[in-house]
Amino acid sequence: MYDKEIRELKEKVLEANLELYKSNLVFFTFGNVSGVNRQRNLVAIKPSGVDYKKLSLKNMVIVNLDGKILTSGLNPSSDTKTHLVLYNSFSEIGGVAHTHSRFATILAQALNSASCLGTTHADYFYGEIPCTQIISDEAIEKDYEHETGILIKNTFSERNIDYKEMKACLVASHGPFTWGKDPAEAVFISKVLEEVSLQNFYTRLINPQKKSMKKTLIDRHYFRKHGKNAYYGQK
Amino acid sequence: MYDKEIRELKEKVLEANLELYKSNLVFFTFGNVSGVNRQRNLVAIKPSGVDYKKLSLKNMVIVNLDGKILTSGLNPSSDTKTHLVLYNSFSEIGGVAHTHSRFATILAQALNSASCLGTTHADYFYGEIPCTQIISDEAIEKDYEHETGILIKNTFSERNIDYKEMKACLVASHGPFTWGKDPAEAVFISKVLEEVSLQNFYTRLINPQKKSMKKTLIDRHYFRKHGKNAYYGQK
Amino acid sequence: MYDKEIRELKEKVLEANLELYKSNLVFFTFGNVSGVNRQRNLVAIKPSGVDYKKLSLKNMVIVNLDGKILTSGLNPSSDTKTHLVLYNSFSEIGGVAHTHSRFATILAQALNSASCLGTTHADYFYGEIPCTQIISDEAIEKDYEHETGILIKNTFSERNIDYKEMKACLVASHGPFTWGKDPAEAVFISKVLEEVSLQNFYTRLINPQKKSMKKTLIDRHYFRKHGKNAYYGQK
Amino acid sequence: MYDKEIRELKEKVLEANLELYKSNLVFFTFGNVSGVNRQRNLVAIKPSGVDYKKLSLKNMVIVNLDGKILTSGLNPSSDTKTHLVLYNSFSEIGGVAHTHSRFATILAQALNSASCLGTTHADYFYGEIPCTQIISDEAIEKDYEHETGILIKNTFSERNIDYKEMKACLVASHGPFTWGKDPAEAVFISKVLEEVSLQNFYTRLINPQKKSMKKTLIDRHYFRKHGKNAYYGQK
Repeated sequence: MYDKEIRELKEKVLEANLELYKSNLVFFTFGNVSGVNRQRNLVAIKPSGVDYKKLSLKNMVIVNLDGKILTSGLNPSSDTKTHLVLYNSFSEIGGVAHTHSRFATILAQALNSASCLGTTHADYFYGEIPCTQIISDEAIEKDYEHETGILIKNTFSERNIDYKEMKACLVASHGPFTWGKDPAEAVFISKVLEEVSLQNFYTRLINPQKKSMKKTLIDRHYFRKHGKNAYYGQK
Repeated sequence: MYDKEIRELKEKVLEANLELYKSNLVFFTFGNVSGVNRQRNLVAIKPSGVDYKKLSLKNMVIVNLDGKILTSGLNPSSDTKTHLVLYNSFSEIGGVAHTHSRFATILAQALNSASCLGTTHADYFYGEIPCTQIISDEAIEKDYEHETGILIKNTFSERNIDYKEMKACLVASHGPFTWGKDPAEAVFISKVLEEVSLQNFYTRLINPQKKSMKKTLIDRHYFRKHGKNAYYGQK
Repeated sequence: MYDKEIRELKEKVLEANLELYKSNLVFFTFGNVSGVNRQRNLVAIKPSGVDYKKLSLKNMVIVNLDGKILTSGLNPSSDTKTHLVLYNSFSEIGGVAHTHSRFATILAQALNSASCLGTTHADYFYGEIPCTQIISDEAIEKDYEHETGILIKNTFSERNIDYKEMKACLVASHGPFTWGKDPAEAVFISKVLEEVSLQNFYTRLINPQKKSMKKTLIDRHYFRKHGKNAYYGQK
Repeated sequence: MYDKEIRELKEKVLEANLELYKSNLVFFTFGNVSGVNRQRNLVAIKPSGVDYKKLSLKNMVIVNLDGKILTSGLNPSSDTKTHLVLYNSFSEIGGVAHTHSRFATILAQALNSASCLGTTHADYFYGEIPCTQIISDEAIEKDYEHETGILIKNTFSERNIDYKEMKACLVASHGPFTWGKDPAEAVFISKVLEEVSLQNFYTRLINPQKKSMKKTLIDRHYFRKHGKNAYYGQK
C-alpha cells in the first residue's frame, strides 16, 4: 500500500504530531493528530500509546473512513473512532487534533463553554467555544470513542454551530478536539485554543459576571481575518 | 525612498519587534511595534500577519502620519491606524507597541483598570493604569482601528491622565497599548506592564477589597525614578 | 556488600532520582526515590540532604526492611522510615517516590483529596486520590517518619482503597508519596499526579461545586488502560 | 582601599547577585544583595540600576555601616539604607537580599503574612512569615529607605520574632527582604521564600479558612533541620 499520496499524508500527520509535542500541549503519550485523504477515504493517525520521540513515518497507522486498519503492525490511537466521526460529519476538514492541554481541559472538566471574552478569541473562534453535555451511560457502554464523535457532531447541529467558523469543541470531563483544513491547521487551532482558554479562565476568575463581548465587536475581529472582506495579513 | 534616516528608523523598529517576540509577550503573528521620525512625519511598522521569524529590514513598512503607505509590497499591521492616532495625539512619543500579553489582556477582558497596588507598579506607572470603556457600535462600524486610537486618547483626556507619566492603556475586551520615547522603550514598558498586571491580578484575587496604595508612597517610588529629584540609578 | 543485584538496584534508584530532579518536581534537596529488592529485603534510597547534582552510585544508601543501614558513610533520606512502612504494607510495590511538587503539595496543605474530575485523572488513578487526616500529636512525638507511613497505610485500609489502583497518597499538610512496580514507575506517577493535581485545583477554583465524574466514565477510562480488557497502547 | 578581605567580600556579593539573577527572582534591574564584613564594619552591595549582565567586581560598591560610600564611581543600590538597618539591628547576619519575586510580592501587596501551612514552609521558616504594617506617611517623607529597615526591625521586636529562626520579612505594598549568615544564604532563603509564598497563596485561594499547621508539626519539621537535635542531612 505504499505510494506517493500515502507517503505525503503520513508526512503531514507525522509533522503535525511532532509540532503538537513541541508545543507543550501534550504530556507523555497523551494526544494525537490525524489527517485525511478525501479522494481515497484514507486517514493517517498516530499509533496508540507510542512515545512522541519514537514517532516515525513507519509507525503512522492508516485506516479507512470505516475504521478498518490497513497497515500492519501498530494499533492506531484509541481515539481513532472519534476522529473518523468528525471526518464523516464535517465534510470539508482535512485534519483533527486531540490534546489534554491544560486550560482547555480544565474548562472541559468544569463543564464550561468558553464564551467570547476578548478579541484574541474572536480573531480565531466565531463566538462561544462549546462544551458538550456529559456523555450518557449508554454511549459509554456502547462504543465509547465513536459516541464521543457523535456527541461533538450533535452539539454542533443542535446548537447550530458552523464547524468552519468554530474549529474546536470541549468534550465535557475529557478535553478538546480541534480541526482544520489539514493536520497543521488542526494543531495550530489547538495552540490558539489553549491560550484563549487560559485567558477565558482567568478573566472569569477575576470577573465571574463577565458576559460575552457584543456581537458587533466579535464580527469586526472575526471577519477582519476570515471571509471575503478580510483585511488582516497579506494578499 | 531609501536613505539613512529611514534605514535607522527601520532598524530600531525591527529590533524592537524582535525583542517583543523574544520576551514571550506575543503569540504567533499577534502584536506589533512602530517608531516615528517626527521631522519627516514617517512611521515604520511591522507588516500585517508576518511571522516574527521572517521579519527583516526589507519588510518593514513605512507610512506617513496620515496613513499613506510609502513602501511597495507588504501591508502594514492592521493596527496601524491606532498607532497613528497615538503619534498624532501624544506629541512627544517616539514608539508604540501592541501585544496580547497574557495578564494585561486578561485585565482588559475583565474590564479592570489596574489600580496601583505595589511599589513595583509605582516605579514605572504613576497611578492607576486605565482600562477604556467598551468601544461603541458606531466606532466599530466606522473606522475601527482609528477609533481604537481615539478611544485611548479620550480616556486619557477625560480622566486627566498625563501620557508621559502613564505609558500604557488597556483597551477594553482587547488588550494593551504602550508607548515611550522610542520603540525600545515602548517594548520595555510592555514587559513591565505584563509583570505588574500579573501581580495586580493575583493581589486582587486573594484580597478583592485591596485599594490603591496611598499617594505618598506612590509619589515616593515614582519620583525616586523619574523627574528632576530622581535618585535611583547612576547620574 | 557489593554485588550485581545491589548494583542494579542502586542504578535504578539513582536513575529515578535524577529523572525526578529533571522533571522539576523537586526543589533544592527536597524529595527522594527508593527501590526495593524483595528477594533480599534490601532498599536503596537517596542520601539525606545531598544535592541532586552530586548523586552517584557511590552515595546511594542501602538499608534493610527493618531500617538497618548497611552501607557506610552517608545517612539515608530522613523520610526512609516512611518508605519502609510502604514496602512492608504494600507487598507488591517495587519503588516509592516523595516530592514537594507544587499542586500536589498545595492540595495536601489545603487538606483536599483530589476527586476524579476528568479522564486524564481516570486514565491513571482509579477514583479519588486520598488526602490523609492530619497526623496526631502522639504520632509526631513518637517516631514521626514511621508514623507518616502508618498514616498512609491506615488511610488506604480504612477507606478500602487498593494500592494497586491508586498509586499515590497526599499526606495532609505535607505532600505526596507515590509508588509503582519499580522506582521509574513511582517517578512517572509523581509526574502524572502533579499535572492531575493542577487540573483538579483549577477546575475546583472555577467550579467549586464540581463533583466527581460518574463511575461509568471512570471505569471506561481506567480500564481502557489497565487490566485484562485494556485496549490502549500496543500489545 | 583594595585588599584581600574587601576583594573576598565583593566576590561573595557579586556571586550572590548573579545567582539571584539566574534564579528568576528579579526582573530588569530590580533587586539587590549585599554582604558585610563585621570586623571592619564594611558592606558591599550592588550598584543602583545597573543591569545584572554588566555586574563585575569593579562595580560593586563599598559603604560603611553608617552609610558612607567608600568606593568612587557608582552609587550603591537605592535600598542600601534598608540593608544597613538590618545589619545594625540583627547582629549576627552576614548577608541581605531584596527581590520583587512574584508571589512574595503579591502577598506583600495583599498585606498578608504567610502563616505556616505546610512542612515545606516549616522546614525553613519557624512559624508565620510576617508582613509589616503599611509604612507611615511620616516615615515616607523622612528617610524612606532607612525607615523601611526600621519598620522591619520593629515588626520583629513587637511580635517577638527571632531573626535567626525567621530570615524573611514581607514589607507591606513593597516586597520581601531576606537574610542569612552570608550573601549566598540570603539568596537561598529568597528562593525558598518564593516557592513557599506561592504554595501559601494557592492553598489559601482554594481553602480560605485554612489555619496554620499545629505547633507540634511545625516544631518537628523545623527542628529536624535546625538546632542541636537536627537529623536531616549529613553530619
